[in-house]
Amino acid sequence: MAPLADIPGNSYYAVIFSSVLRDEAPGYAAMAGRMLELAARQPGFLGVESARGADGTGITVSYWESEAAIRAWREQAEHSVARRAGRSTFYVSFRLRVARIERSDAFDA
Amino acid sequence: MAPLADIPGNSYYAVIFSSVLRDEAPGYAAMAGRMLELAARQPGFLGVESARGADGTGITVSYWESEAAIRAWREQAEHSVARRAGRSTFYVSFRLRVARIERSDAFDA
Repeated sequence: MAPLADIPGNSYYAVIFSSVLRDEAPGYAAMAGRMLELAARQPGFLGVESARGADGTGITVSYWESEAAIRAWREQAEHSVARRAGRSTFYVSFRLRVARIERSDAFDA
Repeated sequence: MAPLADIPGNSYYAVIFSSVLRDEAPGYAAMAGRMLELAARQPGFLGVESARGADGTGITVSYWESEAAIRAWREQAEHSVARRAGRSTFYVSFRLRVARIERSDAFDA
């Protein structure tokens, strides 16, 4: 998967998910990879960008056609299980923000 | 600085800046640190979250009270110089998206 998402136009939504992982978060990498794979199959999925630093702070931004697509992904069964595991097992903290894109710019050297 | 931003309400804007660094980007860390310091002094700045992985992919999301605050930061003199250096020296690619927050959630263990 390309590290940066190319999405035409400016009529879509972002889910900005910022998190701090626990020092011990066994199974996290496998879960996160599986969620990316599942998200990419959801109707209305447009792309995703993700980075996590050595200090455990990470940001994943997923892009969606509509609020309805975001809600459907939230309710997807396996994702719902993973969301519960996030709170019980993986994360110290997270912030989730849903935002509507207004404009964008891109650069490729 | 706390790794995650706590911002009351849902009436603000995000600048989602996703980038891939060049293999050689001398001076990048100092420039990035300086820009965070300057941004935090701008009127309308609400917070910032940032992560960069070992593969060079990074995401910085800054939060602002208004579109006007985002424009003023864009035009700040030292930031304008840094933005030019970003294209000439630091980044392979970047995507910049301005988005209006619609709703949010938070978790702290």
